[in-house]
Amino acid sequence: MLDADIKETLIENLIGQLAGLPSIGRKTAQRLAYHILAQDSSAVNELARTLTDAKSRIHACASCGNYTERETCRICGNGRRQQNMICVVEKPADILAFERSGSYLGVYHVLGGTISPLDGIGPGDLNFARLWERSRQSQVELILALNTNAEGEATASYIVQKLQGMPVRISRLARGIPVGSELEYVDELTVQRALESRVEMG
Amino acid sequence: MLDADIKETLIENLIGQLAGLPSIGRKTAQRLAYHILAQDSSAVNELARTLTDAKSRIHACASCGNYTERETCRICGNGRRQQNMICVVEKPADILAFERSGSYLGVYHVLGGTISPLDGIGPGDLNFARLWERSRQSQVELILALNTNAEGEATASYIVQKLQGMPVRISRLARGIPVGSELEYVDELTVQRALESRVEMG
Repeated sequence: MLDADIKETLIENLIGQLAGLPSIGRKTAQRLAYHILAQDSSAVNELARTLTDAKSRIHACASCGNYTERETCRICGNGRRQQNMICVVEKPADILAFERSGSYLGVYHVLGGTISPLDGIGPGDLNFARLWERSRQSQVELILALNTNAEGEATASYIVQKLQGMPVRISRLARGIPVGSELEYVDELTVQRALESRVEMG
Repeated sequence: MLDADIKETLIENLIGQLAGLPSIGRKTAQRLAYHILAQDSSAVNELARTLTDAKSRIHACASCGNYTERETCRICGNGRRQQNMICVVEKPADILAFERSGSYLGVYHVLGGTISPLDGIGPGDLNFARLWERSRQSQVELILALNTNAEGEATASYIVQKLQGMPVRISRLARGIPVGSELEYVDELTVQRALESRVEMG
């Protein structure tokens, strides 16, 4: 064996797994790995235990599909949230964006994906049954907050079509220029949508 | 109990522990946590096992103090590296910067910190014994690559003083303007050092 062939498998494996996480590049993964190795065993074991504990004990909220460690999540269980205003999202992480804004007082519904025939995901694979059930409450408004790609659009159309004739209001998020962005750098489709949805002033 | 008092302890704990890692802000920690929860249990368990395995089986190289899973690390064990050119660093992570540059063909010596009386770290707490031993090889050059703060300077002085009269060359990294940086944004002390160490041309 050549000297250069010596492998540090454990370190490489640790860096590789960390680099597999979203928004962690190789350089950050190296820094994280060395930080972890510099810590006490107890701290590293606690991090490992937190990971397995969280994964084994956190599951989908029985009402909305958000992550929770109890029967229903803290948002569904919060009496001050409007239970008949339901923001429909693709995945739990999308909820964070709304909660961070602090401007939404309704609840959520997590579909668990979007209809995508190419990926073999049909309506039966998503959390629709519970959505139809929730839509039967009185005076429900669904706010569709799906991604603006083909799958998101198809899923939105499917929901609108399925609920036709039901006494439920359906809206979708406004599309336009992101606040604080420079027009120069906004993509063409966004500019086109913003023009189409222009708002009259004065 | 008020509704708003419902706590998702496990999720908060997971996000909190991830946010405790270097260069991971709260927003990234949230994204990582949700990514982890969206993965299969087997993938999360493997990540947890990788963390504990790496921590329990990776230790200091008997020769240089770098992290390794064997007796000596892959750099000390590489016959093509110059064993008598020793770059002295504070911690294993500092080695990454040199290895990434690909321009260093010697080996390393990890002190495990710098002399810092205020933090109660004296020479006895650092990996000096092995450094003096390695310095007794023939034709050794030590390249001091310690941080440019007071502790780094004090540690460098200590090494120079201890090896006085020994047949060992000691150098330190050049200080100057970082490549690719704009002069306008370089700090005063760096400019001062770069002026002092100016290099004659032509």
